[in-house]
Amino acid sequence: MNATGRGRRARDLGIVIGEHGPGEHNAITDVPGVRVGHCTVLREPDIRTGVTAIVPDGVGPHAPLPAGLFAGNGHGKLVGATQLAELGLIEAPVVLTATLSAFRAADAVVSWMLARPDCADVRTFNPVVGECNDGYLSDIRARPVGEEQVLEAVHGAAPGPVAEGCVGAGTGTGALGFKAGVGTASRVLDLAGGPVTLGVLVQANFGGTLRVLGSTVTPASLGLTGSDTPDVGSCMVVVATDAPLDARQLTRLARRAVFGLGRVGASYSHGSGDYGIAFSVRPGGAPPRDAALSPLFEAALDAVEEAVLNSLFTATTTTGVGGRTLHAIPLPHLLAILRRGGAPLAGG
Amino acid sequence: MNATGRGRRARDLGIVIGEHGPGEHNAITDVPGVRVGHCTVLREPDIRTGVTAIVPDGVGPHAPLPAGLFAGNGHGKLVGATQLAELGLIEAPVVLTATLSAFRAADAVVSWMLARPDCADVRTFNPVVGECNDGYLSDIRARPVGEEQVLEAVHGAAPGPVAEGCVGAGTGTGALGFKAGVGTASRVLDLAGGPVTLGVLVQANFGGTLRVLGSTVTPASLGLTGSDTPDVGSCMVVVATDAPLDARQLTRLARRAVFGLGRVGASYSHGSGDYGIAFSVRPGGAPPRDAALSPLFEAALDAVEEAVLNSLFTATTTTGVGGRTLHAIPLPHLLAILRRGGAPLAGG
Amino acid sequence: MNATGRGRRARDLGIVIGEHGPGEHNAITDVPGVRVGHCTVLREPDIRTGVTAIVPDGVGPHAPLPAGLFAGNGHGKLVGATQLAELGLIEAPVVLTATLSAFRAADAVVSWMLARPDCADVRTFNPVVGECNDGYLSDIRARPVGEEQVLEAVHGAAPGPVAEGCVGAGTGTGALGFKAGVGTASRVLDLAGGPVTLGVLVQANFGGTLRVLGSTVTPASLGLTGSDTPDVGSCMVVVATDAPLDARQLTRLARRAVFGLGRVGASYSHGSGDYGIAFSVRPGGAPPRDAALSPLFEAALDAVEEAVLNSLFTATTTTGVGGRTLHAIPLPHLLAILRRGGAPLAGG
Amino acid sequence: MNATGRGRRARDLGIVIGEHGPGEHNAITDVPGVRVGHCTVLREPDIRTGVTAIVPDGVGPHAPLPAGLFAGNGHGKLVGATQLAELGLIEAPVVLTATLSAFRAADAVVSWMLARPDCADVRTFNPVVGECNDGYLSDIRARPVGEEQVLEAVHGAAPGPVAEGCVGAGTGTGALGFKAGVGTASRVLDLAGGPVTLGVLVQANFGGTLRVLGSTVTPASLGLTGSDTPDVGSCMVVVATDAPLDARQLTRLARRAVFGLGRVGASYSHGSGDYGIAFSVRPGGAPPRDAALSPLFEAALDAVEEAVLNSLFTATTTTGVGGRTLHAIPLPHLLAILRRGGAPLAGG
Repeated sequence: MNATGRGRRARDLGIVIGEHGPGEHNAITDVPGVRVGHCTVLREPDIRTGVTAIVPDGVGPHAPLPAGLFAGNGHGKLVGATQLAELGLIEAPVVLTATLSAFRAADAVVSWMLARPDCADVRTFNPVVGECNDGYLSDIRARPVGEEQVLEAVHGAAPGPVAEGCVGAGTGTGALGFKAGVGTASRVLDLAGGPVTLGVLVQANFGGTLRVLGSTVTPASLGLTGSDTPDVGSCMVVVATDAPLDARQLTRLARRAVFGLGRVGASYSHGSGDYGIAFSVRPGGAPPRDAALSPLFEAALDAVEEAVLNSLFTATTTTGVGGRTLHAIPLPHLLAILRRGGAPLAGG
Repeated sequence: MNATGRGRRARDLGIVIGEHGPGEHNAITDVPGVRVGHCTVLREPDIRTGVTAIVPDGVGPHAPLPAGLFAGNGHGKLVGATQLAELGLIEAPVVLTATLSAFRAADAVVSWMLARPDCADVRTFNPVVGECNDGYLSDIRARPVGEEQVLEAVHGAAPGPVAEGCVGAGTGTGALGFKAGVGTASRVLDLAGGPVTLGVLVQANFGGTLRVLGSTVTPASLGLTGSDTPDVGSCMVVVATDAPLDARQLTRLARRAVFGLGRVGASYSHGSGDYGIAFSVRPGGAPPRDAALSPLFEAALDAVEEAVLNSLFTATTTTGVGGRTLHAIPLPHLLAILRRGGAPLAGG
Repeated sequence: MNATGRGRRARDLGIVIGEHGPGEHNAITDVPGVRVGHCTVLREPDIRTGVTAIVPDGVGPHAPLPAGLFAGNGHGKLVGATQLAELGLIEAPVVLTATLSAFRAADAVVSWMLARPDCADVRTFNPVVGECNDGYLSDIRARPVGEEQVLEAVHGAAPGPVAEGCVGAGTGTGALGFKAGVGTASRVLDLAGGPVTLGVLVQANFGGTLRVLGSTVTPASLGLTGSDTPDVGSCMVVVATDAPLDARQLTRLARRAVFGLGRVGASYSHGSGDYGIAFSVRPGGAPPRDAALSPLFEAALDAVEEAVLNSLFTATTTTGVGGRTLHAIPLPHLLAILRRGGAPLAGG
Repeated sequence: MNATGRGRRARDLGIVIGEHGPGEHNAITDVPGVRVGHCTVLREPDIRTGVTAIVPDGVGPHAPLPAGLFAGNGHGKLVGATQLAELGLIEAPVVLTATLSAFRAADAVVSWMLARPDCADVRTFNPVVGECNDGYLSDIRARPVGEEQVLEAVHGAAPGPVAEGCVGAGTGTGALGFKAGVGTASRVLDLAGGPVTLGVLVQANFGGTLRVLGSTVTPASLGLTGSDTPDVGSCMVVVATDAPLDARQLTRLARRAVFGLGRVGASYSHGSGDYGIAFSVRPGGAPPRDAALSPLFEAALDAVEEAVLNSLFTATTTTGVGGRTLHAIPLPHLLAILRRGGAPLAGG
């Protein structure tokens, strides 16, 4: 596993969310064929940004996947929204980056796709690029993300453990008053008689007050100063599953992705573009009855909650543009608070 | 104040949610001109239902109010949805009742409105009726709600304290494994330089696992048995404000109403039709800038959380159709758990 | 065939719309298993209204059909909208009536459904009722439609030819300055390799200026006076098909139903609630690729155009409340105009 | 006036649409403060593309304008959709180009905006870029549109007459079987007691069968061969007005923009991404009552119809990539047909 996050994930600390267990890596990559790649862009003194790509094997204009979208708060620059919603498909990896870089990232995805041997005949194509505003720590106006960075993330996408925290599109983001970044989690559950996997990846960059295992935790309560919550954000939540949902059902699932942010204390503020994108790696399967979906919805809520916690716990204190700092949550301090509150820490 | 709920509201127990303080009655009626009326329909052995009406003074086809709607999970029978969304208006009290009674309740609202002296010329009119499925405790197929019951709720609507728990449309509902019902709360805050009030009323009837002040509370953890969560539901959340928001802004606010349910542990399951309706009693005012709305959004999240807690805490154990029972939360037991967890109970 | 409309349909007059041919009856009933029933309510001197039911065989809570909805102009009282959209299903006949009667009609559908032997266990159910405002000719405030009328339409639903014009829900409606009513049409076409049927039924009650075979036709141009266009309306367009579309695709189809109104000169005015509802009688089939849908979309546009013309041509001059009159289009006069304009009248 | 289109606009030919008269230039630029600029990109043998910018004076992140969006068929790559819909604002010129160039065009708009003196503090910004697929005539994969081309269109934007046909974003587009391109029209009307102007600009690239003054016109009927309708498209319709509509009302207006395409015979096919964007140059004004909007809706339908006709009539026969040709409508031939059909050609 990538060094980032080792031993600091929520589950490593004894924090267990929900009834259903995780997949092998407790990551979106537990969904068969889903890979994740990062390109981290650090440049002194003021660039703290990057790209994260969620890459379903083989996805492309000739092999799209069923997908759904929910704009919980559409104050964001999500590229590809209307076609995703109209056709209920993604035909490209989902790419995440910084706000003002979203368009050149989308253009880079186009370049990459057009150059693929199987796409010589492609004359229309819908890239999907989400973003968060990492301008609190990074010189967002510089837009240092281009084709090279997008290709590094896409080409570097791998199965297995996923680096979390201050990597890729999470390099410069913060949430709930702390440094955050990328986080992921997964769940395995029975759906309509068979096992299915659901995985979530978040790019966490939103305001509010952290709630974890029933405790409310602010930077001040942990003895931290100087971590203002950035006033703009955009939480991207990407959900993958091998359950053969159709686009309408995936849209319902995408809504739960955004709903899950409330559990960790999101304030859903004006400036926080909160989006859920859900896709299935099983196109053409027979969709389950909607009445069977509740466990999957619950798994999504649980996985989103855990992914956000992972994004916070694995992140490290970061100083960026203008000398501004976002502090990582001091885990020993947090654990002490949780234990004092009688939180049911597994193995703790 | 109506006897129901006296001394048992969240704030009475020392549970305080959020930064902003409540209005005089900590109820949706704190918003100027908003009245609430209930008609409780109890009939042995198997009817536990009713009607609740939220009545803005003077509302009617000739005096509509700006409004917004969000169908978080559209699995419900909300009457009046498309016109509310298209015109951004309500032109009637918002009436809540049981699922299968929604249509005759809507017809009763039409009858009432047509009979008003100021409506002699009215030839089109859009009633707004929401519903929850109280069929776990009540013989929902009997549909005992008619014009008489709707008029009792509408005509009985009063300012001031609001009866909560097992009254009106909350008579037969349950949430999070416990008996619930109607709940309300309000917040007073500064918005764009002046004080505004936001009030919430919920008809709580949804599944999930209760989260309160950071503790997770199940019926089993409180020594209760036999309280299955009903498998269908519909949480209606009505938000009123005297901030002069326009319909688009009220739609954004209505979204936060549904988002707030996640804070108390809602599972947003397939069968739970979760709707937010937000209206302003200040038509024609100059809408604030959207960038100023975040405190109002936060107030909505807080008030929804508190209103749901109020709906649970003020409800009383109820046995209904088929001998099924939903237990009220045993408050002393709950408070003991919260204290043990170090919850910051005000005055506690 | 029902006497209404014999020999006066567009095709009888030589007016042929589009490339694809109609089904046997050129009616929505050409779609296998779809039946239509009317209840016409005439009461002197001022009631001109009724109910029309589109009844797919066997539809019910235990046998729903995939469906999609588009509110082109949501200024209407469509009952059942949010659940239809959320679950992508209808679980009841689609019932059409007059605006202020929509809620009691919905209640009647509930009564009927609950009483069905296969619905003894039903505790939640979503009726779908659309409406037009026939208040120009009928005393709409009287609401003379109740359970008896709805059941007459539902129970009387039959396959085969469909009565058009001043029947059922079209008894009191008018469109484009003329008396209109119910109209229907169908198309048979190849879709993804096999024949499919698409049928349309309209309840036409909208403003604008009639365009037919390229001629613009106003009441004045036909020598008529006194036919003011009603200032409120609601055009309901119901589309049925045996193509195995899923809910998302049916939503796309429903959009074309509303788009088709533009072809005949609809003004899509503020007060005209224009809705498309599309359903498939082939649940569980393998949906075609979206790229194959264009011919079906075109068939929908064509069938809507023809159905509106049929609703106009088969209607008869009607005088109603307040002595107001809507004149039928004088067909010989119209045909003379069309011939003068060189319109390609088939067989004409 | 730019040479393109002189004397060939619909009105020059005696074709008058609707009751309301046009503004001075019968163009979107009749709306106060609205300018239009084109950059035409022609490169032998296979590039026929460009950029068109609709530039409201002073628009920017600190001076946004109320706006609404309707995705009639979301099969397109519209950049900026979710934020436009959420906040009901545009904060940039609306830029139109070719499908695969939309993202680099959006990036160019960002670059331009960030460089503006009044935007030194801007760290979030939502460009709005629409597109049509001009790949039938142009090597769309080459993406020859970049910052230089976008800036030429934006900087060159001027009031007054607007070049139409094969210019800017219309250089390579075709509609209804013929060469088309950019078209514009305007209307002046009374709204709620005062005069208002509404202007439309279309980038026409859709399929169907042309309907003009009641005649149906195909390439074959005009003796043309070889003009296959492109199988993909995206009709962008931009509507500007100085009526002080709010975002919700502008969304209603945007819907009529798409509805208007049906009048000229649009087939609304699967692949044709049809979007309406409407904005007002009068932010902060008191919105009229919705009941007053019908004349404005009608003006939009009329102006869209005329703008599409203008886009067709002013275009010139173009041969492009692969030797494919789209023929312009031979106007004398068309006029002869219209006259034969008795069309009411003004002054004709």
